[in-house]
Amino acid sequence: MPDTTVSGHQPGSGHQPGDRRAGDDGWRIRRTEKDADRLAETESIFALSNGWLGWRGNLDEGEPYGMPGSYLNGFHERRELAYPEDGYAFPQLSDTVVSAPNAALIRLWVDGEPFDVRTGTLRRHERVLDLRAGLVERHTEWISLGGRGVRVRSTRLVSLAHRPVAAVRWEVEALDGPVEVRVCSDLLANQRVPERSDDPRAATVLDDPLVAEYRRSEELDGVLVHRTGRSGQRVAVAVAHLVEAPGTTATDTGCEADRFRLTLSGPLRPRQRLRLTKFAAYECTRADVVGDPARADGELAARTGHEPAGTAGRPADDPGGTGAESPIELATRAVRAATEARSVGWDALVAEQRTWLDAAWTTADVVLDGDPELQQATRFALFHLIQAGRAEGDRTIPAKGLTGNGYDGHVLWDTEGYVLPVLTYVAPAMARSALRWRYAHLPEARERAAELRLPGASFPWRTIGGRECSGYWPAGTAGLHVNADVADAVLRYVAATGDEEFLVDAGLEMLVETARLWHGFGHWSDTGSFHLRGVTGPDEYTALVDDNVFTNLMARRNLRGAADAAEAHPEVAARFGVDAAEVAAWRAAADAVHLPYDPKRGVHQQSAGFTELPEWDFESTGEDDYPLLLHFPYLELYRKQVVKQADVVLAMLRSPGDFTAEEKARNFAYYEARTVRDSSLSSPGQAVLAAEVGHLDLAYDHFAESVLQDLEDLGDKTADGLHLAALAGAWVALVQGFGGLRDDRGELSFSPRLPRRLTRLAFSLLWHGQRLRVAIAPEEVRYDLPEAGPGTGIDLWHDGERVRVTGDAPCVRPLPAAPDPGPEPPTPPGRRPARRSAD
Amino acid sequence: MPDTTVSGHQPGSGHQPGDRRAGDDGWRIRRTEKDADRLAETESIFALSNGWLGWRGNLDEGEPYGMPGSYLNGFHERRELAYPEDGYAFPQLSDTVVSAPNAALIRLWVDGEPFDVRTGTLRRHERVLDLRAGLVERHTEWISLGGRGVRVRSTRLVSLAHRPVAAVRWEVEALDGPVEVRVCSDLLANQRVPERSDDPRAATVLDDPLVAEYRRSEELDGVLVHRTGRSGQRVAVAVAHLVEAPGTTATDTGCEADRFRLTLSGPLRPRQRLRLTKFAAYECTRADVVGDPARADGELAARTGHEPAGTAGRPADDPGGTGAESPIELATRAVRAATEARSVGWDALVAEQRTWLDAAWTTADVVLDGDPELQQATRFALFHLIQAGRAEGDRTIPAKGLTGNGYDGHVLWDTEGYVLPVLTYVAPAMARSALRWRYAHLPEARERAAELRLPGASFPWRTIGGRECSGYWPAGTAGLHVNADVADAVLRYVAATGDEEFLVDAGLEMLVETARLWHGFGHWSDTGSFHLRGVTGPDEYTALVDDNVFTNLMARRNLRGAADAAEAHPEVAARFGVDAAEVAAWRAAADAVHLPYDPKRGVHQQSAGFTELPEWDFESTGEDDYPLLLHFPYLELYRKQVVKQADVVLAMLRSPGDFTAEEKARNFAYYEARTVRDSSLSSPGQAVLAAEVGHLDLAYDHFAESVLQDLEDLGDKTADGLHLAALAGAWVALVQGFGGLRDDRGELSFSPRLPRRLTRLAFSLLWHGQRLRVAIAPEEVRYDLPEAGPGTGIDLWHDGERVRVTGDAPCVRPLPAAPDPGPEPPTPPGRRPARRSAD
Repeated sequence: MPDTTVSGHQPGSGHQPGDRRAGDDGWRIRRTEKDADRLAETESIFALSNGWLGWRGNLDEGEPYGMPGSYLNGFHERRELAYPEDGYAFPQLSDTVVSAPNAALIRLWVDGEPFDVRTGTLRRHERVLDLRAGLVERHTEWISLGGRGVRVRSTRLVSLAHRPVAAVRWEVEALDGPVEVRVCSDLLANQRVPERSDDPRAATVLDDPLVAEYRRSEELDGVLVHRTGRSGQRVAVAVAHLVEAPGTTATDTGCEADRFRLTLSGPLRPRQRLRLTKFAAYECTRADVVGDPARADGELAARTGHEPAGTAGRPADDPGGTGAESPIELATRAVRAATEARSVGWDALVAEQRTWLDAAWTTADVVLDGDPELQQATRFALFHLIQAGRAEGDRTIPAKGLTGNGYDGHVLWDTEGYVLPVLTYVAPAMARSALRWRYAHLPEARERAAELRLPGASFPWRTIGGRECSGYWPAGTAGLHVNADVADAVLRYVAATGDEEFLVDAGLEMLVETARLWHGFGHWSDTGSFHLRGVTGPDEYTALVDDNVFTNLMARRNLRGAADAAEAHPEVAARFGVDAAEVAAWRAAADAVHLPYDPKRGVHQQSAGFTELPEWDFESTGEDDYPLLLHFPYLELYRKQVVKQADVVLAMLRSPGDFTAEEKARNFAYYEARTVRDSSLSSPGQAVLAAEVGHLDLAYDHFAESVLQDLEDLGDKTADGLHLAALAGAWVALVQGFGGLRDDRGELSFSPRLPRRLTRLAFSLLWHGQRLRVAIAPEEVRYDLPEAGPGTGIDLWHDGERVRVTGDAPCVRPLPAAPDPGPEPPTPPGRRPARRSAD
Repeated sequence: MPDTTVSGHQPGSGHQPGDRRAGDDGWRIRRTEKDADRLAETESIFALSNGWLGWRGNLDEGEPYGMPGSYLNGFHERRELAYPEDGYAFPQLSDTVVSAPNAALIRLWVDGEPFDVRTGTLRRHERVLDLRAGLVERHTEWISLGGRGVRVRSTRLVSLAHRPVAAVRWEVEALDGPVEVRVCSDLLANQRVPERSDDPRAATVLDDPLVAEYRRSEELDGVLVHRTGRSGQRVAVAVAHLVEAPGTTATDTGCEADRFRLTLSGPLRPRQRLRLTKFAAYECTRADVVGDPARADGELAARTGHEPAGTAGRPADDPGGTGAESPIELATRAVRAATEARSVGWDALVAEQRTWLDAAWTTADVVLDGDPELQQATRFALFHLIQAGRAEGDRTIPAKGLTGNGYDGHVLWDTEGYVLPVLTYVAPAMARSALRWRYAHLPEARERAAELRLPGASFPWRTIGGRECSGYWPAGTAGLHVNADVADAVLRYVAATGDEEFLVDAGLEMLVETARLWHGFGHWSDTGSFHLRGVTGPDEYTALVDDNVFTNLMARRNLRGAADAAEAHPEVAARFGVDAAEVAAWRAAADAVHLPYDPKRGVHQQSAGFTELPEWDFESTGEDDYPLLLHFPYLELYRKQVVKQADVVLAMLRSPGDFTAEEKARNFAYYEARTVRDSSLSSPGQAVLAAEVGHLDLAYDHFAESVLQDLEDLGDKTADGLHLAALAGAWVALVQGFGGLRDDRGELSFSPRLPRRLTRLAFSLLWHGQRLRVAIAPEEVRYDLPEAGPGTGIDLWHDGERVRVTGDAPCVRPLPAAPDPGPEPPTPPGRRPARRSAD
């Protein structure tokens, strides 16, 4: 590129990111449609994140958009919850995710006409997510209404190696004739977000949530500092630019309260290019305001006089609460990170991105030979999991990651129930980070339990900042199983990693406090069994039930896990007041947990009496009546045998030893016929149990539904963000379903199956730091430890046989025969997942 | 009163209302306190109403006030309901009562200083509600800060003889020295109403709900017309004055959008008086907008161009929906009524009031010899019932009558469950009027059932305009028993009156549609019993339960009542598509209704499994923890054996034949020990069953709690309006409790008891137009028909004996011995009603 001058501090290279070699589609997600109806959905699919910062895949030029979004983990505002009829302990404030200032915007005018894919002629418009490079590339050729042609190419990344950093390389090239271009690189706060729907599961949108506090610009660079009004969080976003442009290009900057803008303008001759590289850095204070929100607001107000905001926010790594950084301090930190990124340079950022991902893929990749489409979808799912989970400090993964504002950006049990069972094995540091986030919010969970007049701790059903934000308690507060899900994730993490330090520092206390909750919540019947009444299990189409099997079994695991941990670390347990009598009480309750069973039908009851409820009238339920929750009142749903999502089936995955093979088969068939999968959380569990009982085609189809949840927008909700639990569920379906992985006894156990569609299924797990590779072929199953030295090894179970896999040589066993389960059980009419198994 | 000129159209007299003869306290409620904390409560106690118009007992001068209120039956605004997490069929709009313009205001300035009981010196301040005269009198002697003394006396009435009319006679007299007075008689719209509390049971306050449409003044009179913005109702209030004042008095009027004011000013010599008589008339269009609110709003908007409001309101007596009156037409009607009232004259209004009440008291009065305090309280209760119920057209009685804005002015099951069982016997035309109101809203109930995807009709849990307004469905929509309560009230009314015309015109259709609801909602178990799952019974401390005994028995009564009525009027039933097969299906379901019973404890279960739930920890529950709903989450309340209000106990009152005497005694004792009476609806049923099983002292104390609910503000909620169901419950406790009245078989049955405190209990009931008088004395029970001619008679049951009472002579029987029930059953600690029985 002759005829180009370089401004800014360091020159970039002409690197064109991402290979395009043939046969690479297993690692690349392409979209070429410009259909505005699908825009929001593709923004979720092309979202980039490093666990700290997330950029939705909005077009560089900002418009059109489905929903703009630049999210920081934990960054949120609070809003009042209004109830038509209020009740005791109904949360009065809710956290809601708000966008940080958007640094991704690069707008273009061509001969005064705004570059907009909705106008003019679009000759080409391709976007690619490269799953190995961690980049989103875009290539657009556009002819303006005035007949002027330009090619716009951009590549963006959210750095997996540098926490606060994101960057965009953007260039415009004149096509056949000369054009006059104006390029505005914006950093924009309080970007308007559209109200998306009246669906109760959608997000709440707050107008102008950010209050400007500070701004500064210098040469081509700028920084804005804002704070949220109520949650008292402060965010600084800095941008540093590098411009490669013709010498005739004029440069200007402007800085307002909500916008920093770099403007480049001038002529481009045919084939001449203007290139801009933009390095952005995000810094913010944390959401961890101690105590109740009213007090926090009060503190905020009290301090407003001399220090306008953010001082009520206590960073998690600042447990003494000495106060957050001032606007200038935070701005300085962001500017430093942005300019450092520019010093590192674009090429190095791209290279580091690849290096980081190569390492992650070594463990995370799952190979599916025989189904290229689902191979690609599986990698897409895992890519989003590992970029969402990048570990650092106390940080968790919201239900939508940082890909959208669905569920108000809340963390739900999706994390411990679906995402961590995967990350524990493919990226255990991420699991640890998420569990430490729960631990950091144990004080709020204790407060909540006290408010509920229960002992121990009660983790929130949904939250960002750590307090309960559920506005419908029968499907929120009553979902007490979230506490056992957290405990289960702790136990799994410790078993898989042997991380006793975590157990002693944090895990034990969480186990103890949740065990106390269950022990205090449950009660003993006359006949000596232990009951948990009036709770809501995973299936949200029943609520406030007695003895939900899933909840009871998970509570049992919680009680026993706490007892085991307390006995293993008595001196630590004693610090929390645990004595032998308390441990004995937990064990007694765990042993006596009641599991309702219907002897007449030979199946477990999802909750007491469930199988005696009226059947749902599926014959009269039309296709348009789904999801049922939008077409039937809870009055109907709750009292009938209709299941939104796997519940008993999930219990059989979590606690396989509590069911015989025959019970599993009967339970699976019974609930398969009544489960409508109106939740994306349902398919993974159904896939696993279908595989276990031998319905491999059905299992594969459930797997496909889970892995394609977002790529095919099966739930029509991808626009609001990706369903990370469903994406994690793809791994669950493959590894726990076809791999037959079970881990409830603190050991690895496999009962592999190979679905008809696949000729080979291979995956890895980390176990106490060792990578175990499992490859399932039609004739054999191969276990090996590729990185282990001779002599080191892992004990595991293969199809009921105890085997030891060592670094010396692979352990090979014949593929066990799957049981013959007879004909596939019926599903509700029209609700069987699409058939892909036999294509 | 020499030295007085009279202006206005007709002279008034010097009548001083109300006798003050000694021994009259059984008929007079006095308050002399000026304690501002009790102000709102006394405003409810001194409220006057004629069922159409209600004036709270606000001070004439308007301030201070607890809560100003001038209510018209059915006059309301709609407001949006916001849910943190919305759900299908959650009501999106709620009706909320708003004050009509206040015509009661008469403000006074003395030598420029506002007359205000909070300033200056109050030498006397007495207010009296005369229960026989239907008047509220007030007598205040006040010395201003400037040392000027005046006596203010007023008497007000809301005319029981003339629907739209209320009137005030007001006079000010100079005491020892001359004073300069200014008197402003106001008609004021959009009077500010204070937000009272954050208690979920309190009302929602809308600011400035009325839009001014029209005003006019002429001589001393004025009229204002307003409309509500959303519900499209129009109200006109006219005032006509009569002034008797010194000739030196100047007169002025002013009319603004929200205020008409007559001002009188001039000097008063010592002992000289100025008297003002104010005749007000209220007219409004009705709330019966057909169809869904959105459509109604749309219609309203569509018509706003040429006719600003009210046209979407369809008067109930205008079923064709030809449209409501214009502002001028409505104003003309109000002015005519006000000036006619002035023509009738104050004395005549007072006399007619007395005549009307004398007739009402003939049937309604209950005599309690031996307890003057509760005698007075009983009459207070009955006064409010009969003034609230004055019958005309399709009109019902909200839970707070027209005495306050509690529960947003909504009608709840209080009406059919508590108030109508009284009015059916003491003022059956009132019961008919209320049932016709339900019938007028059968279309909305059908629409609601369809929305709930159920057959038949589902009446709203709470409403003003006929649509469901409950914002918490587990204690609203799920309270399906309201439908059976309506049906029960229909059956009782028809049995007591023989009003077959009502049955054919309206009652049968309600019975059929509610029977269809139950039949469609319930389901058959494998074992051939009929179940109603997932409902909420009267006890709101459990919700979404299976087979609530009360609901099941009431549904049985509903189904059988519909079947009987359909068979009695087959040609009418056929018009609604009822055939023999449907009737047979109703009977089969009714016969098979399941009643959960705990054989081990020998008691019925309030709902399936209730007696196996954890017990409430009463020992750890402090006095300040009541009402529990304000201190414990539903999560705790719902899953434990704690009862807010009589439920099984109420079932035993409604359906006595389904329980043996032993079961009644055991059930009563079991639930008495677990019932905390956090609802004012509880005591009446407890009183009745306590009396039946023989705990007469406990019964009396429950009776006392019910009858004193508002006079002693036992629930701390009287400020928001009177609890009409509790006041009705006083009669229920006396007549069904001590009288032992049961009417479930369509016949009158008595099992009288006399509590220790009373030497005589006497009451009357109307049965097929005949007044039956029952007098219970220590030795005997006397039945007679005081107005009946010889030969006419009533068959009834006395203590299991069939007797015929005729007009010839009283029927006298010995007082049966009450069973000896042994020691009084325990109540939750601290929750036994206060002991009055043995004083």
